[in-house]
Amino acid sequence: MPQGQPLVVPDDGLTTRQRRNRPLVIVHTGPGKGKSTAAFGIGMRGWNQGWRVGVFQFVKSAKWRVGEQSVLEILDEVHRETGKGGPVEWHKMGSGWSWSRKQGTEDDHAADAAEGWAEIARRLEREEHDLYILDEFTYPLKWGWVDVDEVVETLRNRPGRQHVVITGRDADPRLIEAADLVTEMTKVKHPMDAGQKGQRGIEW
Amino acid sequence: MPQGQPLVVPDDGLTTRQRRNRPLVIVHTGPGKGKSTAAFGIGMRGWNQGWRVGVFQFVKSAKWRVGEQSVLEILDEVHRETGKGGPVEWHKMGSGWSWSRKQGTEDDHAADAAEGWAEIARRLEREEHDLYILDEFTYPLKWGWVDVDEVVETLRNRPGRQHVVITGRDADPRLIEAADLVTEMTKVKHPMDAGQKGQRGIEW
Repeated sequence: MPQGQPLVVPDDGLTTRQRRNRPLVIVHTGPGKGKSTAAFGIGMRGWNQGWRVGVFQFVKSAKWRVGEQSVLEILDEVHRETGKGGPVEWHKMGSGWSWSRKQGTEDDHAADAAEGWAEIARRLEREEHDLYILDEFTYPLKWGWVDVDEVVETLRNRPGRQHVVITGRDADPRLIEAADLVTEMTKVKHPMDAGQKGQRGIEW
Repeated sequence: MPQGQPLVVPDDGLTTRQRRNRPLVIVHTGPGKGKSTAAFGIGMRGWNQGWRVGVFQFVKSAKWRVGEQSVLEILDEVHRETGKGGPVEWHKMGSGWSWSRKQGTEDDHAADAAEGWAEIARRLEREEHDLYILDEFTYPLKWGWVDVDEVVETLRNRPGRQHVVITGRDADPRLIEAADLVTEMTKVKHPMDAGQKGQRGIEW
């Protein structure tokens, strides 16, 4: 929580202010809980700063809905009504993305994932958001549905001041290398180990 | 994200429903980022379920303010105006707590922390919240300002269905033992290592 002081001041020709405002690539990985929750928490912080927040959930079911989606949609309304915070868009892969005309290609998750990334790359090029949350995006990378090198290249060359948060287990080493901030969530103890199923409010 | 199936069904005499709804003690510990952010994310989820959320920040400065505080205060307003979600209280230790009459005891953080815990114990007894977020509470435990055994005992005997989330580094083994869900956040890479200070929207 405290701001802290850097241990080393790098010889990168940047002023402290430039360095402080450098856009970040953040990765939450590992087998533990809290990867997505912490990412959506950054979404709240960004909203509070007036950032344009874009969430892209690479999940297979369109029905799945986490509490944060409801909350960030309410915050988007608050923004439109009062000017507080920033605008929020929440897109879910499910069976095709909301911006896509095609429907009912339930079985081609690979194509859906590739299309999702292509749209994100376009938005990065056009600087459409200040914060991108690519939830569970490590999986299409892992399964080869989206090319890791292309993602890393696009992230490295993105213009302006756009932050990108990526969540999911088994983040590719190239993605970790390209990231500025990487946290691994490790499971120490989980109630499912003691025979408890996930519960409302905690898991979603 | 998927609900998953438990590996083992315990012989605890509970139905699946009872077990599912069992109130949890959750600990986010470790040296990495995201402990508090993920806790406040659970706060969003709980709010969305209509839970009465109580946040207790064991921080020394009353000035420090994270974006989530602004957001959860807005959500509390939304609740009061529209009935959506639940009520939220956000209390910060700083120099004394908001419910306390005494002021200006800046130097006695130990007494402030003990008073904070005493109030939380009273609220647990009275079942005042459905979700308690005890942010950075591991530190007063570590420093001996609050007795770990008493905390564990109080958590074990709390009535009803009250969830408690505790964050901070170096969680005491007795606390971990008493918890249902423990995640350790491990730092893999941090921009402060590369000479970058914390930045708005990301760190607070």
